[in-house]
Amino acid sequence: MKLNNLNDLLIHELKDIYNAEQQITKALPKMKEAASSDKLKKAFQDHLEMTEKQIERLDKVFEIIGEKSSGEKCKAMEGIIKEADSMMSEKADASVMDAALIASAQRVEHYEIAAYGTVCTYAKQLGMDEVLDQLLITLEEEKKTDSLLTEIAEKSINAKAE
Amino acid sequence: MKLNNLNDLLIHELKDIYNAEQQITKALPKMKEAASSDKLKKAFQDHLEMTEKQIERLDKVFEIIGEKSSGEKCKAMEGIIKEADSMMSEKADASVMDAALIASAQRVEHYEIAAYGTVCTYAKQLGMDEVLDQLLITLEEEKKTDSLLTEIAEKSINAKAE
Repeated sequence: MKLNNLNDLLIHELKDIYNAEQQITKALPKMKEAASSDKLKKAFQDHLEMTEKQIERLDKVFEIIGEKSSGEKCKAMEGIIKEADSMMSEKADASVMDAALIASAQRVEHYEIAAYGTVCTYAKQLGMDEVLDQLLITLEEEKKTDSLLTEIAEKSINAKAE
Repeated sequence: MKLNNLNDLLIHELKDIYNAEQQITKALPKMKEAASSDKLKKAFQDHLEMTEKQIERLDKVFEIIGEKSSGEKCKAMEGIIKEADSMMSEKADASVMDAALIASAQRVEHYEIAAYGTVCTYAKQLGMDEVLDQLLITLEEEKKTDSLLTEIAEKSINAKAE
């Protein structure tokens, strides 16, 4: 299918994000399992629940624009998660592994910040206010999660790993 | 090699970033070629030159910490670029392709923002002031590039793609 206009591209990008979120729901339980810090385990569990709600929000977005909810293999997220998997298979001191898990999780978050940032600018340009409202909620959640991970790293994990 | 402490993890992460930057220098000329907007072509060219300087800066960082400059396959960047490649092979109106290229480039930038953000917090924790100074320069450049891409998208490309 040719991408003729910004609306086509918006749908293309939403499918990418939909699949990325689904990949994240499979990765987070493994990351929680690999973590030692209770605070970090909780952050991963909370983010898993948040991600499930973000997928429901995407379902709503697809409904608003009259498209069937569907994903298209997000190769970028596949790579980011492959890298996290290979990090989890490394031998590491428990606190160092926690620091490494945060590094991986922040790469995931930044992918999402870029992706949601992009579809927000498209929705704004297209005057799709209802869609924009939904996407902005998730964008803010991703930014907050990223900040929370920085805080956990700087306030406890990194010093322990040192 | 077991990752025993934050210093080991810092070196591990620097190798990941070093390889990611090298992958980016190969991707940017293709993205420039695929772009139609002169402003966007120039942004990709400028960023290519900036990336080459960022690699030199990483060489300096490796020298400071007494490690040989080397990369380790960054699977995440490989995925992000694979996705950009598959976007470039799509059929699209010229302005829509420009918008899509910006979307891909911002995913690249955000990966780097996350990665440099991480090594900056490690360098700070480890009291490596000279290393931190170098890494902070690049982190700021990546953030500025991301903002510039948003500006190009919002001020011209997205409206044309609509």
